[in-house]
Amino acid sequence: MPIFAAPVRDIQFVLHDLLDISRQDVPGYSDLEAEFTEAVLEAAGKLASEIIAPLNAVGDRQGCHLENGVVRTPEGFKDAFEQMREGGWTALDCDPDFGGQGMPYIMSLATNEMFVAANMAFNMYQGLTHGAYSAIHVHGSAEQKATYLPKLVNCEWTGTMNLTEPHAGTDLGMLRTKAEPQDDGSYLITGQKIFISAGDHDLAENIIHLVLAKAPGGGEGTKGISLFIVPKFLVNADGSLGERNGVSVGNIEEKMGIHGNSTCVMNYDGAKGWLLGDLHKGMRAMFTMMNEARIGVGLQGYAVAEAAYQNAVAYARDRVQGRAVTGAENPTGPADPLIVHPDIRRNLMEQKSFVEGARALAAWSAYLVDRSHRLDDAAAEGLVSLLTPVVKGFLTDMGFASTVQAQQVYGGHGYIEEHGMSQFVRDARITMIYEGANGVQALDLVGRKLAAEGGKPMMAFFEEIKQTIKQHEDDADLKASFLDPLKAASKDLQAAVMFFMEQGMKNPNAALAGSYDFMHLFGHVALGLMWTRMAAAARKALADGTSDREYYESKIATGRFYMTRQLPLTAAHLGRVRTGADPVMALAEDQF
Amino acid sequence: MPIFAAPVRDIQFVLHDLLDISRQDVPGYSDLEAEFTEAVLEAAGKLASEIIAPLNAVGDRQGCHLENGVVRTPEGFKDAFEQMREGGWTALDCDPDFGGQGMPYIMSLATNEMFVAANMAFNMYQGLTHGAYSAIHVHGSAEQKATYLPKLVNCEWTGTMNLTEPHAGTDLGMLRTKAEPQDDGSYLITGQKIFISAGDHDLAENIIHLVLAKAPGGGEGTKGISLFIVPKFLVNADGSLGERNGVSVGNIEEKMGIHGNSTCVMNYDGAKGWLLGDLHKGMRAMFTMMNEARIGVGLQGYAVAEAAYQNAVAYARDRVQGRAVTGAENPTGPADPLIVHPDIRRNLMEQKSFVEGARALAAWSAYLVDRSHRLDDAAAEGLVSLLTPVVKGFLTDMGFASTVQAQQVYGGHGYIEEHGMSQFVRDARITMIYEGANGVQALDLVGRKLAAEGGKPMMAFFEEIKQTIKQHEDDADLKASFLDPLKAASKDLQAAVMFFMEQGMKNPNAALAGSYDFMHLFGHVALGLMWTRMAAAARKALADGTSDREYYESKIATGRFYMTRQLPLTAAHLGRVRTGADPVMALAEDQF
Repeated sequence: MPIFAAPVRDIQFVLHDLLDISRQDVPGYSDLEAEFTEAVLEAAGKLASEIIAPLNAVGDRQGCHLENGVVRTPEGFKDAFEQMREGGWTALDCDPDFGGQGMPYIMSLATNEMFVAANMAFNMYQGLTHGAYSAIHVHGSAEQKATYLPKLVNCEWTGTMNLTEPHAGTDLGMLRTKAEPQDDGSYLITGQKIFISAGDHDLAENIIHLVLAKAPGGGEGTKGISLFIVPKFLVNADGSLGERNGVSVGNIEEKMGIHGNSTCVMNYDGAKGWLLGDLHKGMRAMFTMMNEARIGVGLQGYAVAEAAYQNAVAYARDRVQGRAVTGAENPTGPADPLIVHPDIRRNLMEQKSFVEGARALAAWSAYLVDRSHRLDDAAAEGLVSLLTPVVKGFLTDMGFASTVQAQQVYGGHGYIEEHGMSQFVRDARITMIYEGANGVQALDLVGRKLAAEGGKPMMAFFEEIKQTIKQHEDDADLKASFLDPLKAASKDLQAAVMFFMEQGMKNPNAALAGSYDFMHLFGHVALGLMWTRMAAAARKALADGTSDREYYESKIATGRFYMTRQLPLTAAHLGRVRTGADPVMALAEDQF
Repeated sequence: MPIFAAPVRDIQFVLHDLLDISRQDVPGYSDLEAEFTEAVLEAAGKLASEIIAPLNAVGDRQGCHLENGVVRTPEGFKDAFEQMREGGWTALDCDPDFGGQGMPYIMSLATNEMFVAANMAFNMYQGLTHGAYSAIHVHGSAEQKATYLPKLVNCEWTGTMNLTEPHAGTDLGMLRTKAEPQDDGSYLITGQKIFISAGDHDLAENIIHLVLAKAPGGGEGTKGISLFIVPKFLVNADGSLGERNGVSVGNIEEKMGIHGNSTCVMNYDGAKGWLLGDLHKGMRAMFTMMNEARIGVGLQGYAVAEAAYQNAVAYARDRVQGRAVTGAENPTGPADPLIVHPDIRRNLMEQKSFVEGARALAAWSAYLVDRSHRLDDAAAEGLVSLLTPVVKGFLTDMGFASTVQAQQVYGGHGYIEEHGMSQFVRDARITMIYEGANGVQALDLVGRKLAAEGGKPMMAFFEEIKQTIKQHEDDADLKASFLDPLKAASKDLQAAVMFFMEQGMKNPNAALAGSYDFMHLFGHVALGLMWTRMAAAARKALADGTSDREYYESKIATGRFYMTRQLPLTAAHLGRVRTGADPVMALAEDQF
C-alpha cells in the first residue's frame, strides 16, 4: 500500500518563511502564528495520513455502486467522513455566522492539500460541498442561507455542481435543462445532467444540487441561464427533511480513476428548485464557485503528485538494482539503491522541484484570494483572476506528468495496481479535464484574462517579478542562480504578450494557436518567481543562523535545479507562440 | 466503441515514396512492388479493423482469468487468433524452411502496426512468439529448430520471454532461478519469474518459455546466466505433446492496462529445460530477441497513438461546441465542430506529426535491420543498433503523450471508459516500461551505443543528415522550412555529443544526468530527418504530376508543423544536457 506522510514542514515553510503570513495585513492573518498553524497542520496531517490515506486504494478497488437508486460509497468512507466532519475540517474557512471557523482561505488550502494527497476521490465530497456553500453564501437570500449553510458547513448535507449535459460541456449556452416557474415562487426543473461528481452517495442525509437551467424569457445562449438550488430531499419549514424531490441517479460512470467518487448521470424530472441569485444571471453565480474550484483543482494536481513523489522516493531508496557508475555505494549489498543513478535523480528532482514550486504558487494565490475577500483589494483580485487559469492548467498538466514520472521509478511494479502508482496517474488525469479542460484554461488566459482591465493584472505580475529582482539584486549568489534566469524567463513572457498584442486583433487565430504554450510559459515563470522567493527566504533563514541548515540548503538546491533545467523551457514555448497560426491551421479539415 | 481504419495509404507512402523499397538492393525487396504491398496491407488492415479491433474494448473489460491453473483469455480472442494464424500473418517474415513466408522484416513491421493499433494486448501473443522464434532460429540446434520453429511460425504454439524476478528487473545479474544439469543433457529449472506477458492462455496447444537461469560454474552476475527452452507440455520425439512440465501460473497481475494480455507470475518447480545457445552466454542470446523486441515496442508507442488520433479527429469533427473565433463555420448548427478551434488543431497536429514521423523512423529502422540481416551490412547494423534505444524510448514517451492528447480532445467523455480513450492511454503506458524502462534506454544510448565502434554509427547518422541536406540544397522551399531547421537541430545534437565526449570520462554522472534529454534530443532530430525526407518525397510526387495533390500537400504541411514547432525543442534538451551533473546530484539522499 502506498505511504503518505503529511508534509507539514514544507507547508510551514511556504506559510511562514515564504509568505510570512502572520505579519501580513490581511484580517485574520495575525492569528496564524507558526505554532498555531503547525498544530492545525499536524492535526489535519494525522487525519489525512492515518484515516483517509489508507482508504485510497480501497476506494479505487471497490468504487461506488448504484443499489436500488442509491449510491453506496466504498467501505470506510462513511466513518472517515464522519471524522472529518467532527474534526471541523469542512468548516475551517466558513462563515462563523453559519457554524464555520472563520479562518482564512489559505488555511483551508493548506489542510486540503493533505486530504487530497491522501485520497483525492474521498476529499471531493467535501470539496464540492464547499463550492455549493460559497455560491449560496454569496448569492443566496437570507432564508436560503439560514436553511442550507449550517448544514453544508459541517457537511451534514453535501453539495454538487450541475453544469454539463450530454451535448453541452464547455459550451453551456447549448444546455437544455428547463426551469418552469410555479406560483409559489419555486421552479420545476427538468433535464439531464452528466458527470456530476458526488451526485449521490451515502455519506450525508441530504444533497443540495446547484443546477444550471433555462427559465423562460432569458434569451439565447448563456444569457438565458439561471442557477437553482435543488435538494435531494425537500426541506420542511422547521429544517427537517421532507419528501424526496424529483431528482434521481440515472447511472454511475465507469471512469479511468477517482473510483471512490461517484460520478453520476442525474435526471431531473420536474424536480422542485429555487432560484439562487438573479434570474438569468446563472453564469455569473456559477463563476463565483468556478474560480475557487479551479484553484482547488490546481491543488489536486500537485497534491496527488506529492503523494506519488513520496512513494517514488521511498522506492528509489529501498529497491536495489545496478551499481552507481562512479563505484558501488552499497558494496556489501547485492546492488545499489536506485537513487544513486543520475537518471533516477533527474526524475525525482523534476517531481520535487515541481511539487514544491506548485505549492508556493497555490499558497500565494490563496493569499491573494484572502486579500481580495478580506480587504476588498481589487489589485489582488485582478492578479489572482489572471493566475487562476495558470494554476488550474499548468499545475494539473505538470502534476499529471509528475505522477507518470513517479510511476516510472517503479518500472514494471508501477504498472501493476498493487503498489498504487497507477492509481495516482489515473486519478490525476481528471484534473486536466474537469472544471474546464486545460485548453479552455489557456483560452480563458489569453482570450480574456490577459487583456482584462486594460492589462493591469498582467502588468502587476511583471511588477511582482521586478520587485523581487530589485529586492535581492545585491545578493551575488542569488543573482547568478535565480535572478538572472528569472529575468530571462520574464523577458520571454513579455515577448509572448507583445506578440499577442501585435497579432491578437488582426489575427485572433495566431493568439489562440499559441495559447497552450503561453499557459505553460506563464506557469514556468510563475514557478521561477516562487523558487526565487523561496531561495531568498531560505538564504535569510541560513543567515539568521537556523539550526536546520540542511533543510534550507535543500530548498536552495531544489530551486537551483528548477531555475537551471526547467525554467529555460520558456524559450521553447515562446518560440512556438511566435510561429503563430499558420503551422497549426494549415490543413483543411478533411486532411486530418 | 472506438473506430479504427487501416492507414494503408500512409504506410504505402513510407514504403514507396519515402523508402522506395522495391528499388533497394536488399534481397527480397524487389518483390515489394507497390501493388503487392498494397494488397498485403489491405488484407492485414481488413483483419485488423474488422476482426481484431472490435475485441480491443472486450479485452480491456473482461481481462484474463486464472481458472484451475489455466488462463482464460477474453471472449473472441481464440477465434481471432485462429484467423490471424490461418491468414499466415504470424509467419510473414519467418524462414520458409520452417513454414514461414520469407518476406522482409519491414513487411512484418508494416502489418504489425495495424494489428497493434487495433488491439495491442491481443497482438502481444503473436509478438512474443515471434521473439521466441527469432532466438531459437539464431541460437537453436538443428533439432531444436525442427522441433519448435514450425509450430512457433504459425503460432500453433506460442512463446514467452522470462527475464524478470521479484528482486531482479533491470539488474538481471541478481537473478536466482537455477538450472541443474541432468544426465540426459537437460536441466531442471527452479525459480520464480514475474511480469511474464502471455505466460499462460488458451490460444495455443503449447507454450514455449525461454527462461534465463543460472547453471553451475558460470560465475557471478550476468556472466553466470544461460537461456533455456522450457515448454509448458513436453514434446515427444514424434512431435506430439507429452506430459505437463513443472511450470505453473502463480498469479495473474492486475494492471493499469493491456488487460487482454495475461501477465503472469510463473513458478518453475524443477521444470525440464534445454539449453538454448551456449552455456553461460544467455544474455547474448537474449539480446538477439531484445533489439527486435525494442523496435517492436517503439512501434506499439506510435501504433496506439495512431488509433487514438483517429478517434480524436473523428470526435473533433463530430462534436459541436463553441464558435470559431473568426466567425461561425457551421452557422446553421447550434455550434461549430471542435476542429475549428486553434488549440484543438494544435493538439491534433502534434499527434499527427508525431505518428507519421514515428512510422517513418520505425520503417527506416526495419529497412536497416533487413540490410543487416540480408546483406550482412555491418554499417546498417551499427546504425540500427544506435537507433534502437531512440525508437524504443522516444517513440513510446511521445506515443503515450500523444494518447493523452487524444483523450484530452474528448474532455470528460475521454475520462469515462465508454469511449475507449482511457484504454489507449492505459495500454500505451506500459510501452515506456517494458523491454527496458526508458531510463535504461537512455543509459544504453549514452553509456554504450554512442561510443560503440569508436563512434562510427553516430558519425554515420550525422552523415545521413548531411547527405539529405546536400541532396536538396537547391530546393529553396525545402531549404527554409526543412533543411535549415534540420541543420540547426543536428548542430544541437552534435553539441550534446561533444559535451559527453568532454565530460564523459572524467565525470560519468554528467553524461548520465543528461541521458534522458539526449534521447529526446536525438529522437527529435531523427524525426526531423524523416520529415525532411518525407517532404522531399512529397515534393517529388507533386513535381511528377501526381493526381493526389491534396494528400502530398498535407504531408508537407504536417512536416512543416513538426519542423517549426516540435523540432526546435532540441535547443531546450541541449541546454539541459549542458547543465551536467550538479543540479541533478546536488541533494544528499536524505534530503529528498
